[in-house]
Amino acid sequence: MNGLHYRQWQPGRNFLIKIEPGESLRTCLNQFALDAGIHHAVIVSAVGSVCKAEFRGIKSGAKRPISEPRMSRHHLEGPLELIGLEGNLIAESSGSVDIHLHILLGKSSGEVAGGHLFDAEVFAGCEIALCEMQVTGVARYASKSSGTPAIYIEED
Amino acid sequence: MNGLHYRQWQPGRNFLIKIEPGESLRTCLNQFALDAGIHHAVIVSAVGSVCKAEFRGIKSGAKRPISEPRMSRHHLEGPLELIGLEGNLIAESSGSVDIHLHILLGKSSGEVAGGHLFDAEVFAGCEIALCEMQVTGVARYASKSSGTPAIYIEED
Amino acid sequence: MNGLHYRQWQPGRNFLIKIEPGESLRTCLNQFALDAGIHHAVIVSAVGSVCKAEFRGIKSGAKRPISEPRMSRHHLEGPLELIGLEGNLIAESSGSVDIHLHILLGKSSGEVAGGHLFDAEVFAGCEIALCEMQVTGVARYASKSSGTPAIYIEED
Repeated sequence: MNGLHYRQWQPGRNFLIKIEPGESLRTCLNQFALDAGIHHAVIVSAVGSVCKAEFRGIKSGAKRPISEPRMSRHHLEGPLELIGLEGNLIAESSGSVDIHLHILLGKSSGEVAGGHLFDAEVFAGCEIALCEMQVTGVARYASKSSGTPAIYIEED
Repeated sequence: MNGLHYRQWQPGRNFLIKIEPGESLRTCLNQFALDAGIHHAVIVSAVGSVCKAEFRGIKSGAKRPISEPRMSRHHLEGPLELIGLEGNLIAESSGSVDIHLHILLGKSSGEVAGGHLFDAEVFAGCEIALCEMQVTGVARYASKSSGTPAIYIEED
Repeated sequence: MNGLHYRQWQPGRNFLIKIEPGESLRTCLNQFALDAGIHHAVIVSAVGSVCKAEFRGIKSGAKRPISEPRMSRHHLEGPLELIGLEGNLIAESSGSVDIHLHILLGKSSGEVAGGHLFDAEVFAGCEIALCEMQVTGVARYASKSSGTPAIYIEED
């Protein structure tokens, strides 16, 4: 199967992260990665609440690559329940860590909104469980064909 | 960064949990924590279906703390697909375990609802994967400023 | 508590999986399980984008078992943000692996759709983190009373 790639990783350190009201989710995760010396990690769980959420969807019927005119940008002032934060931290070949996040937001109406997260501000608090991945042969790069950052995986 | 706190935990035991029709999600997770002697844990995955889901959102424009008049309560009779259950089990200083759960519910229409979960009844079944966190210096407490239970994290 | 069952598992191998545009999510996960010799695993995280998503909800007010007339089938052409993919891989007594997946899809409007996943095609890419569960006494079987595949768990 040409389009399937995978690679084994070893569990590294595990962290419980607490972010306080008013902080940027993305800035805090970047700071955490720097402080703790994280190169690769996966978010296992996140609950809390946020406001000022900036995220995007892909326009219906859009083709690849996902360029700016093919995205729909959204801003929700909130506050909103943070019901899910899926994503990973993968080092670029330059060494800096790229954080790819998708968010799920519970609205006052009980409906759920979400998409590819640019950033959000923590409202009442945020609790994240994260596992470090010890892995080689994996790096984030800018994919021209998809229009988004992608992962390069050296085959096992 | 003042609003960022984190602490390392060691993986403890891992469990696969099955809950049968008619049971309360919350009661079962409480019973499981008691039976298995769990103090801290994180939900890694949950799939199944539920009915009689009771959850809440935060009213648009609400300020902190999240008090009762600033919440919007929802009841969905269902049945609904249980698409996600995010959350953690953290011991209070008293020793009893507090379970913080956010739920994602698939409606008949294909739309997704969800928020901070009070409780739901298992419909056709529920499968949960959970990891115990072995950690010290972490406790749940009632935060007056946020209006919700928060986690105290002793810095590493 | 009669309706609560659980069993301990040991962490096995961990994988980072990348799926390229045009591939079927389900076919790739099946192929991966075959290639890697996976019998039991849990999806920890998934982000990416998909199109041609086929999933189902349960009709409001439906009774058990969840038979075909009690489901509502949905097709979303997309493309859509893949915001979450929850589920597990559990071997049947025959030895073949059953993959139970629930999906969360971010629409162009910022709304989220989802349910029990039949299949979807990867649009710009998909990144999955997965942990193998080393466990005995666990098997998938077709439950007549629930109408869906269920997990048999031998009590510890």
